[in-house]
Amino acid sequence: MVGTPIPHPASGAPPAADVVVVGGGVIGLSCAWRLADAGLRVVVCDPAPGLGSSWVAAGMLAPVTEVHYGEEPLLALTLASARRWPGFAVEVEAAAGVEVGLQQTGTLLVAGDADDRRSVQELHRFQVTLGLDVEWLASRQARQLEPGLAPGISGALWAPGDHQVDNRALVAGLLRAAAHVGVTVCPVAVDHVEIAAGAVTGAWTAAGDHIAAGTVVLAAGWRSSLVGGIPDGLVPPVRPVKGQILRLQHRPGPVRVLTRTVRALVQGSVVYLVPRTTGEVVVGATMEEMGPDTTPTAGAAYELLRNALRVVPGVSELEFAEFTAGLRPGSPDNAPVIGPAAAASGADGLVIATGHHRNGVLLAPLTADAVAALVTGHPGPPEVAPFGLARFAGGASPAAAAAH
Amino acid sequence: MVGTPIPHPASGAPPAADVVVVGGGVIGLSCAWRLADAGLRVVVCDPAPGLGSSWVAAGMLAPVTEVHYGEEPLLALTLASARRWPGFAVEVEAAAGVEVGLQQTGTLLVAGDADDRRSVQELHRFQVTLGLDVEWLASRQARQLEPGLAPGISGALWAPGDHQVDNRALVAGLLRAAAHVGVTVCPVAVDHVEIAAGAVTGAWTAAGDHIAAGTVVLAAGWRSSLVGGIPDGLVPPVRPVKGQILRLQHRPGPVRVLTRTVRALVQGSVVYLVPRTTGEVVVGATMEEMGPDTTPTAGAAYELLRNALRVVPGVSELEFAEFTAGLRPGSPDNAPVIGPAAAASGADGLVIATGHHRNGVLLAPLTADAVAALVTGHPGPPEVAPFGLARFAGGASPAAAAAH
Repeated sequence: MVGTPIPHPASGAPPAADVVVVGGGVIGLSCAWRLADAGLRVVVCDPAPGLGSSWVAAGMLAPVTEVHYGEEPLLALTLASARRWPGFAVEVEAAAGVEVGLQQTGTLLVAGDADDRRSVQELHRFQVTLGLDVEWLASRQARQLEPGLAPGISGALWAPGDHQVDNRALVAGLLRAAAHVGVTVCPVAVDHVEIAAGAVTGAWTAAGDHIAAGTVVLAAGWRSSLVGGIPDGLVPPVRPVKGQILRLQHRPGPVRVLTRTVRALVQGSVVYLVPRTTGEVVVGATMEEMGPDTTPTAGAAYELLRNALRVVPGVSELEFAEFTAGLRPGSPDNAPVIGPAAAASGADGLVIATGHHRNGVLLAPLTADAVAALVTGHPGPPEVAPFGLARFAGGASPAAAAAH
Repeated sequence: MVGTPIPHPASGAPPAADVVVVGGGVIGLSCAWRLADAGLRVVVCDPAPGLGSSWVAAGMLAPVTEVHYGEEPLLALTLASARRWPGFAVEVEAAAGVEVGLQQTGTLLVAGDADDRRSVQELHRFQVTLGLDVEWLASRQARQLEPGLAPGISGALWAPGDHQVDNRALVAGLLRAAAHVGVTVCPVAVDHVEIAAGAVTGAWTAAGDHIAAGTVVLAAGWRSSLVGGIPDGLVPPVRPVKGQILRLQHRPGPVRVLTRTVRALVQGSVVYLVPRTTGEVVVGATMEEMGPDTTPTAGAAYELLRNALRVVPGVSELEFAEFTAGLRPGSPDNAPVIGPAAAASGADGLVIATGHHRNGVLLAPLTADAVAALVTGHPGPPEVAPFGLARFAGGASPAAAAAH
């Protein structure tokens, strides 16, 4: 890459900063905001800030109903971040002057037929052994909470602590909050990180600009493994996991098919419906290993609609507003990679914050606090410690260790 | 409406013409092109030329598989226009210098289960009594023609004379052909027709321009009944009939799920799939009496996808490219209204060409020839004679007469 340290007029990247954040999704923006709030000069580089998987997401904050067998270590992380969410939302809203749409209304996990009920009840027992706050509801009780549920459902699990945030309002809020504390957002990709004499010295953009900086935070989602200049052992092992997702919309008027998040297992298929106070209902999502493909397909639209209609028949009348696909950053153990390059790695100043997979929005507060603590030299949240890059070096991971 | 005969800069309507055509869909544009080609000065007014139901349509030219019980008089009309289509396409392409995508590859009407087969075979018997060119195929024979059909189909009706045209390429071609013979297309609605001393004297646009003209052709689709200035008895009885329709798209490559139009009756539901050589597959369409509502709904998307996947499972992998709704101009007997205002009506020079419902693209050649003949004082296609406005005056219609 041939470039010049003089700012390129097209991208307007400043010539120097304390920190360059590679990636302007909810993770990158949250980190940038916290770092700038701590007094650092921060530049975020992203060709389309906030418009990647953060934009496509549903915004569920669901550590309990998202818990998976074998991922207990991740649960400590997601619960810790969930606890930070109410305060985080207040802070973002105060800093940005706009609302982010946090709805603390709990989540129902609905079982379709009798087989689905057995599976959900098994998950319920697992959740109880983990000490999670969940309650089993008979079909009638669930339909009292949400009269829009199909009469034929066979029961539901009630998770009063699993909430949601409007991820698009959050992106807008974070961009404003970051701007208010002096973060510069450059709409350009980082081509490669510059490292000299064992330490980060800056970043080069795809437009050929150089930004001098002693710290680089790699928060580029699934593209984090494609950023150049990073020593082999420090490239985070992330891959794109395709998610196709629908956005439906109520017609004008007060009627709502749902008032809280409903997840469901229907005839073995998983679906979720996230209703916003704006009238939007987000329906998701596929999990596909297709490489960097974001093509929405007929088959995925069919399955999402079929499953949603089985659980909430009234969805039928909603406007079909948007159907898109995003790419989650998946790691080998489905947990994020948060932490510094190791001391002996020859890349001092490189901090990694990616691999958040299905939990990027949920984990944004904790990740941002961890990264800010790391960069400013303060103690960070202890739950994050096991989730560094080192766990992949020997083939072991927190999740794998727990399973043994 | 306050206006001025001086052309308004926003719309650029010329101050005078021989003919004002109200509506720039396939009907209005075809009429305008024929009239200008005959030497007349023609102005077409439409706020969004070509972007109404002509744009949303699928482009099927299907008099045989579209035949309905009790609509035999309409059949004579649709067959007559179908015969004109090959020549019409050649003429539009020669005049426009672009292709319109006429594919003369026939149509299969597929039966899903045994009940569907009984219904399709009943239709087949009806078609045979009408002398139509149709052939019954066993499931195996149908799948030899189209290997993408689901193995479980129970048979199919083969209509070798039902074809398709790329309706969007047609719109583009008609706009160019019309421009080449001097038609002026003004992107503005007509507010009202001006009538004085028993005859049309021009039209006033929504921008306040006056266009002097001795002839007005009312071809505004379902909005034709909303155009002002027309004496009560001459307002065409048309209403919007909502159609929701999907556009899917093959990925790059030579593989195609279908090579010809497939219509189907699957578990009592009707669906069609129209494959283009461009890789597009149009899947339609709902028929809904919802007034002027063009909101695409979740329920309609679900049903179209479900039905399409039952007939052609490979559709699953196609890109979900577009989902929209259009408004067909429906008349009381589902047949078009083509003809002059009656001699004693007090609106000499008013010509009506609307109400084409599902058959606008198919009937464009015949309608344009009929309107051009009418305006220039030549004999027109005889099949059109029964389809004037007069049939609604006494409550009788060609379709109703045939049913008695």
